[in-house]
Amino acid sequence: MLEELKKQVYEANMLLPKYGLVTFTWGNVSGIDREKGLFVIKPSGVEYDVLKPEDMVVIDLDGKKVEGDMNPSSDTATHVVLYNRFPNIGGVVHTHSPWATSWAQAGRGIPCYGTTHADYLYGEIPCVRNLTKEEIDEAYEKYTGILIADHFAQQNLDYEAMPAVLCKNHGPFTWGKDAHEAVHNAVVLEEVAKMAARCEWINPQNQPAPQELQDKHYYRKHGANAYYGQKGK
Amino acid sequence: MLEELKKQVYEANMLLPKYGLVTFTWGNVSGIDREKGLFVIKPSGVEYDVLKPEDMVVIDLDGKKVEGDMNPSSDTATHVVLYNRFPNIGGVVHTHSPWATSWAQAGRGIPCYGTTHADYLYGEIPCVRNLTKEEIDEAYEKYTGILIADHFAQQNLDYEAMPAVLCKNHGPFTWGKDAHEAVHNAVVLEEVAKMAARCEWINPQNQPAPQELQDKHYYRKHGANAYYGQKGK
Amino acid sequence: MLEELKKQVYEANMLLPKYGLVTFTWGNVSGIDREKGLFVIKPSGVEYDVLKPEDMVVIDLDGKKVEGDMNPSSDTATHVVLYNRFPNIGGVVHTHSPWATSWAQAGRGIPCYGTTHADYLYGEIPCVRNLTKEEIDEAYEKYTGILIADHFAQQNLDYEAMPAVLCKNHGPFTWGKDAHEAVHNAVVLEEVAKMAARCEWINPQNQPAPQELQDKHYYRKHGANAYYGQKGK
Amino acid sequence: MLEELKKQVYEANMLLPKYGLVTFTWGNVSGIDREKGLFVIKPSGVEYDVLKPEDMVVIDLDGKKVEGDMNPSSDTATHVVLYNRFPNIGGVVHTHSPWATSWAQAGRGIPCYGTTHADYLYGEIPCVRNLTKEEIDEAYEKYTGILIADHFAQQNLDYEAMPAVLCKNHGPFTWGKDAHEAVHNAVVLEEVAKMAARCEWINPQNQPAPQELQDKHYYRKHGANAYYGQKGK
Repeated sequence: MLEELKKQVYEANMLLPKYGLVTFTWGNVSGIDREKGLFVIKPSGVEYDVLKPEDMVVIDLDGKKVEGDMNPSSDTATHVVLYNRFPNIGGVVHTHSPWATSWAQAGRGIPCYGTTHADYLYGEIPCVRNLTKEEIDEAYEKYTGILIADHFAQQNLDYEAMPAVLCKNHGPFTWGKDAHEAVHNAVVLEEVAKMAARCEWINPQNQPAPQELQDKHYYRKHGANAYYGQKGK
Repeated sequence: MLEELKKQVYEANMLLPKYGLVTFTWGNVSGIDREKGLFVIKPSGVEYDVLKPEDMVVIDLDGKKVEGDMNPSSDTATHVVLYNRFPNIGGVVHTHSPWATSWAQAGRGIPCYGTTHADYLYGEIPCVRNLTKEEIDEAYEKYTGILIADHFAQQNLDYEAMPAVLCKNHGPFTWGKDAHEAVHNAVVLEEVAKMAARCEWINPQNQPAPQELQDKHYYRKHGANAYYGQKGK
Repeated sequence: MLEELKKQVYEANMLLPKYGLVTFTWGNVSGIDREKGLFVIKPSGVEYDVLKPEDMVVIDLDGKKVEGDMNPSSDTATHVVLYNRFPNIGGVVHTHSPWATSWAQAGRGIPCYGTTHADYLYGEIPCVRNLTKEEIDEAYEKYTGILIADHFAQQNLDYEAMPAVLCKNHGPFTWGKDAHEAVHNAVVLEEVAKMAARCEWINPQNQPAPQELQDKHYYRKHGANAYYGQKGK
Repeated sequence: MLEELKKQVYEANMLLPKYGLVTFTWGNVSGIDREKGLFVIKPSGVEYDVLKPEDMVVIDLDGKKVEGDMNPSSDTATHVVLYNRFPNIGGVVHTHSPWATSWAQAGRGIPCYGTTHADYLYGEIPCVRNLTKEEIDEAYEKYTGILIADHFAQQNLDYEAMPAVLCKNHGPFTWGKDAHEAVHNAVVLEEVAKMAARCEWINPQNQPAPQELQDKHYYRKHGANAYYGQKGK
C-alpha cells in the first residue's frame, strides 16, 4: 500500500540526519497522497540508522491509522491538521534543528534580513504563541496544528509563500509540495535562522531588507515570471 | 570478569568521540552491576582510538580497584559517590563538552527554555558551587560527588528526572539507567546548552517555557502515561 | 569549445561545497578566456552532485549565450559587468556563505582586525548599498555589477588588492586571476568574516590592526618584495 | 639528515588540518634536535595535501638553512628565537586557528575560566602587544619571537607551565617538549579560547576560576604529585 510514497517519505526522513537537522529521533517527515486522502509518516522514536521504508505508517485525514505495525510519530495529529487546513501541501516536516529552535525558544519570528531568506520565504517567518493549559491538556498535538493554521488565517499569510513556522518554546514546522520540498524548506529555514541571529549580533540596530529586494528575489524564483533555474527549458 | 559490562561500557565510551563530546581524553563513562556491587570505568588518560574493552577497570563501591592493569579514571571517586547516593542509576558520564562546559564556566544553571530540554530533563539543570580549598585539598574528586548528591538532596531534586549537573568552573556529569543512557543524556545536555545560550542572545529578556508545556513534554516521554515511541507495543 | 576552461571552472565550482561555502545551489563560479573574450559559468539551479564539466555555459562580454544547453546562472549579468570593468580578473565567485552573508545582511563592511585578513585583502572589505527600486526593476543583476564597479572607482579601491565585496542584504562576490583563485578568496573571506564577528563580541571596543602590520603582511605575500611561499625558486 | 625528526615534524604538521586548526597553508610546525642544535620546519606556502616528509627544511639556531630544496616557513625567524630563549622546548607551532585568533584580534589574554584550561595552561594566556613600525620594518618575524620571550621574562611567566601565547592582531604560537606536544597544546588552546568566549557571553560578569581549583587541576596532571593518566605505571 502506497509503496512508492513510503519510499519517498523514507528518503525524505533520511535527509534530516544528512543535513544535520536532527539529533537522535528529534524529527519526522510525512508525505500525502491527495487522491486517496492518506498520508505516510515516520514511526515514533525509531532511530534513523535502523529506519526502513516499510516501517512508515499510513494515516487518514481523520488521524486514524490505516496501516503499519508501529505507532506513528507522536506529532501525527499536528500533521493531520496541517494537511486538512493547507490543501495544496504534499509534505510536512518537524525538527528541533538548533538555530530555528533557538529562535522558537526566544519566542521571536525571524525578520527577512536578506535574499537567502527572500528566495524561499516571503516575509517574516512567524512564531506562534504558547498553547494554553486547556489546549495542552485536551489535545496538545492537534491544537498545535490548529494554532498554526489559525495564525496563518488571522494574519492573512499565504502558506504557499511562507512554508515555515516556529512554535514558541518548541521548534519549527515546514511544509512543501511534497515531502522532499518540505525538507528542503527545513534546511533553508535553519540557514536563514543562523544568519539572522548572527547579523543581529554584528549589527544590533539591523533592519529587514527593503521590500523591493525581497520581492525581486522571491519572484525571481516563484510565479509566472520566475527565471531562476532551468524552468521553461 | 564482567566481560559483557566491560563491552557495554567500552562502547558507551566510544560514543563520546562519535557525538563530538570529547577532545583527546577529556571524558569518561562507567557502568555498574548492581547485584555484584561493582562498576567498570575507563582507564585514565588513554586515547579513544587505542582503547579496548579489556582496558576497562573494575572498581567496588568503596572505590577500591578489584581488577585491571591500568589506573582508573582520575574522576573515579566521583563516580563512586554517585553510585552510592543515587541507587537507581546504572551509568555515569563526565565530559568537557564545549557548550555544557561554557555554562559551567559561567557558573549558571541552564533554564528550561523549550521542549527539547523538557523532553529529557525536568526543570532547570543545576550548577553546583565551587568546592572549598579544604574540600579540594582533602579529597577533590570524592567531594565533587558529595557536593552533587547533597545539592540534589537539599534542593529536593529527583535525580531520575534530572540526570545532569554542572560543576562550576569545571564541566558536566550526567547519568542514566545504564552507561548508554548516561551518554544519551550527555548528548541531550550539550544540545540543550547550545540552544539555551543562543536563545538568550536572540532574546536577552527570555523566560523559561511555561510549566504546563514542560510537564506535557516530560510526561509524554516518561512515566505511566507516556505515549512517545514504541513502548507498550 | 573552451574544453579546458570548462573543466577548470567546473572544478572551481566543485570547491564551493568542499569548503562549505554553499547550501544547495546557492553559489556560482565563472572563469574567462581573455583572448577570446568569452567566459564560462555554472548553469542556473543545477545541484552540485549532478553537475558536469559539459554543463558549463559559454557567455560573451555582451552577456550573450554563445554555447550551452542550459540557462546560465541567474547572476550572469553581474559577472559580465565585473569582467568588463575589472580587466585583470580571470574568475568571479558568488556565494551565500554564512559568515560573509551575515555581515552583508548587517550592512557593514568588515574591518581589518588581523593578519589573516591583511595577508589577502588590503583594508576594510567594502559593503555596497542596496540598489534602488528603479535599478532592481530595470536590470537587477546588471546593476549589481555596476554598483560594485562604481563603488570601487569612487572610493579609489584597487580591485586587485581587494578581491571581495559584500552586497547589502544579499551576500558576497569575490574574484581573482582565475576561477580557482576567486574561490580561494571566497574561502579567505568566510574565515575573515567569522573571526571579525567573534573578535568584536570578545572586545566590543575593538580597533583595526595597525596600518604598518597590515602593510607588512600584505606585502609579505604580494608585489615585488613578497617572500612568502616558494616564489622565485 | 635528521630523517626521523623530519618524519615526526611532518606528522605533527599533518595534525593541524586533522584537528581543524588550519585553512590552506596558515600554519607551521617545527621540532628540534637539541644535541645537534638543528631544527626541522615546514616549507613556506606548501599545501598540506601535497606535503611530504622530505620537504621539511633544516635550520640551525642562527636561522641559517642547513638543508632543503624549499624556502622554510616565513615564520622561521620566530621559531629560531623561541628555541634560543626557551631552552627546554622541543617543538613550536603557529596557526591562525579561528577562536584563538579571534582573541588575538581582540587584543585580550584568555582568563582561566575552568579546569579544561587549568589542566594544561597555568594562569591567563598572555596576549603580547603589537610590534612597533621600527621592529616590523627591521625584522618582523625575529622581533615577534623577541617580544614573546621578553614578555615571559618581564612578567615572570614560566614558559613550561604556559606553553601558549597570542600575538595581538595576528594569532597564536604554542610549544611543547616536542612537535607533537606543541600541536596538542594548540588544540587545547583552541578549545579553551572557544569556551572562554562563550562563557563570557553567557555571563558577562564572569570571573576566573578560584586559584585553588586551578592549582588542583594543573598539579593533578603536572609535576611530582601528578596522578592523572598512566604515569608511574
